[in-house]
Amino acid sequence: MLKLQTRFTDSYATKEGVSLLLERGNACFSEVMEDQTKDIGNKGWITVPKANDSELSALLQKARAVREDADILVLVGVGGSNQAARAVIKALGEQKKPRIVYGGNTLSAVSIKKMLDELDGKSVYIDVVAKNFETLEPGSHFRVLRKEMEKRYSKEEMAKRVIVTGTRGSRLEEIAKENGYTFLSFPEDIGGRYSAFSPVALFPLAVAGLDVEAYLSGAREQKEALLTAGAENDAVMYAAYRNYLYRRGYSVEVLTQFEPQLDYFMKWWVQLFGESEGKEYGGIYPSCAGYSEDLHSLGQYMQSGRRNLIETFLSVKEIPASVVIPEDRAFRDGFDYLEGMDFRKVNKAAEEATIKAHSEGGVPCFVVEIDRIDEYHFGALFYFFMVACAVSGKMLGINPFDQEGVEEYKRSMFRLLGKK
Amino acid sequence: MLKLQTRFTDSYATKEGVSLLLERGNACFSEVMEDQTKDIGNKGWITVPKANDSELSALLQKARAVREDADILVLVGVGGSNQAARAVIKALGEQKKPRIVYGGNTLSAVSIKKMLDELDGKSVYIDVVAKNFETLEPGSHFRVLRKEMEKRYSKEEMAKRVIVTGTRGSRLEEIAKENGYTFLSFPEDIGGRYSAFSPVALFPLAVAGLDVEAYLSGAREQKEALLTAGAENDAVMYAAYRNYLYRRGYSVEVLTQFEPQLDYFMKWWVQLFGESEGKEYGGIYPSCAGYSEDLHSLGQYMQSGRRNLIETFLSVKEIPASVVIPEDRAFRDGFDYLEGMDFRKVNKAAEEATIKAHSEGGVPCFVVEIDRIDEYHFGALFYFFMVACAVSGKMLGINPFDQEGVEEYKRSMFRLLGKK
Repeated sequence: MLKLQTRFTDSYATKEGVSLLLERGNACFSEVMEDQTKDIGNKGWITVPKANDSELSALLQKARAVREDADILVLVGVGGSNQAARAVIKALGEQKKPRIVYGGNTLSAVSIKKMLDELDGKSVYIDVVAKNFETLEPGSHFRVLRKEMEKRYSKEEMAKRVIVTGTRGSRLEEIAKENGYTFLSFPEDIGGRYSAFSPVALFPLAVAGLDVEAYLSGAREQKEALLTAGAENDAVMYAAYRNYLYRRGYSVEVLTQFEPQLDYFMKWWVQLFGESEGKEYGGIYPSCAGYSEDLHSLGQYMQSGRRNLIETFLSVKEIPASVVIPEDRAFRDGFDYLEGMDFRKVNKAAEEATIKAHSEGGVPCFVVEIDRIDEYHFGALFYFFMVACAVSGKMLGINPFDQEGVEEYKRSMFRLLGKK
Repeated sequence: MLKLQTRFTDSYATKEGVSLLLERGNACFSEVMEDQTKDIGNKGWITVPKANDSELSALLQKARAVREDADILVLVGVGGSNQAARAVIKALGEQKKPRIVYGGNTLSAVSIKKMLDELDGKSVYIDVVAKNFETLEPGSHFRVLRKEMEKRYSKEEMAKRVIVTGTRGSRLEEIAKENGYTFLSFPEDIGGRYSAFSPVALFPLAVAGLDVEAYLSGAREQKEALLTAGAENDAVMYAAYRNYLYRRGYSVEVLTQFEPQLDYFMKWWVQLFGESEGKEYGGIYPSCAGYSEDLHSLGQYMQSGRRNLIETFLSVKEIPASVVIPEDRAFRDGFDYLEGMDFRKVNKAAEEATIKAHSEGGVPCFVVEIDRIDEYHFGALFYFFMVACAVSGKMLGINPFDQEGVEEYKRSMFRLLGKK
């Protein structure tokens, strides 16, 4: 399902070199996993819902009803409130109906106007995802969208068309009750970046027609794999090697991949690590690049820039498309050596060449390999990186679950806009 | 038109602190600008064509003919061969006909198949942009696209529908002659990242219906402004301060902006600086983020992560859209403080709050302000950053115009794929 390889030359980090850190990593892993057996509230990613979970059944039923009637679902949310769902839907959910449109994630009047124009003449549903319901972007967009929709829809229609996802006991839950909206729960005690297996992500995935059960299976089986891995625990390995490299001055990590379907997954990853580890004026700076395209832009830096880079490749074994490079010798274009080759093979060669060139050139590389890009493997990837990130944060001695720096910006915005 | 501000607290860099570097910067600037008066061949960005340039007129005429007949222009190119044009077209050229589709910039069979599917039943033209015509992506896509098009179009039709942009004397020019294709010139002695004012970018911009004359004016007036700026030369200031900060351990620069229209400009910028400065195991790592969205992902790191970050904001004065947040007091959503405000104002407040919070929090910030997002200001931005990058590279003591690291990857790919 999911496999981690390290492509290091001896000089970066050997198993002996990191053995103490591997030990600490294992202890942190046990701590992280033990939380799951305790009654500590709704800890988002820790609780991967079972198939017979009653909130899950209700959510899937509502999603089916939305699919029957909607042209567009506007997913109103920013950061952890949309990243996981968007990553999967952009990769797999390009169905025509309903189309998922993203709102509540910008303050640009140009972008908001464009989004509103898209709704013209369409059957519109919205899912407002807001943990504390104070954040500017989703709050303001909800108001704008609600007033637009009220021009077209009756109170009863609105009740059918608005879904809100917030914490239990929040003002958003009251609003749902007052207006008859569907209410879904947002995990309380962990930041949105860990909410991939909660209604925050599950509801939009279901509306997009994706296989939620396969997605949850991927997470559950990844969890099982980590729990039974013993000394070869990939999440611990990743966390421990990263920590070792960080202590030796490697301060930028670049996540990359050769399949543009994974572009939005990278955005989710950047938030997960940036928000979990960027604390106390430390942490690895998380960056990303889409290859082979960005080899023609960042490639030079990866090869010959400052040697403070770590590179993590998402690698996909099976590709469900085939395009063969045709014969055309009479044309003399200099590309006859590619004749009869499938881009699947050429792309794999590019991946191999890149990992080899970068790791031999002084960039310690990780390779996270999955069998294919589907719901199951997204579930596995999210689970894997969330656990690895929690372990890594604990190893750094910081709290990987809070985000005080973001709260600070929010407060300064409130002051500027005159909020009391 | 374009204005640079530094938002530094005293502790990062004062004018006195960088005075020696400013002196060196001015000398490097003179060197860079003097090249323009010498007869050193076709140096791309250095030569901003005049309105009466004969190649420009021919190119505009061909573009008009393409616009009349094409549903789609496939711009086949990667890295410097498409970044500048794509940045402007994605921001301003969302016309329906012809649509610009991007090819030659991936090896993913899934992506290539999707691109080919888009051409079905459409009137297709292609512009193949390839400096040395050895690069895998554009070369292989040209072959695939050509063979597809030949199924539908006669030899005469093909001659009309294929445009190739390469260096004079290259195999691509011969191919154009042999097949009757239109040939446009790619500047010879500078990497593609400096080609924003050559046919490489001008032809696709014209096909997209954009104002090429305004774009070139922006560049010309920016050049004039820099040449007459004296001690307040923004390009020298930017280069000198960056160099100063780099020497003091700031090793990551994050370009950012609050208008998603500028998303693809950031990709161009990452290539410009990464490929120009990532040499001899040094240089600032170029990264980018789109705010306000990414404040909810990278924001935590910017505020509280490692203090080795520089941040450069692209700031836009006039926004051509307006969305006002409506009244809805009865709803009690907690957002009444926004009532009657325009997102234009809210977004500006977010920008101000961010620059203040980050610069006071230990991140030296640059602000590059333009009046509005249009062709003129894209011309000014490209010119400004190209000159600043050339100056900065010279100050670092490296050659900002070559890209040996990319060539190395290309060679290792050729070996893997069995090219002789």
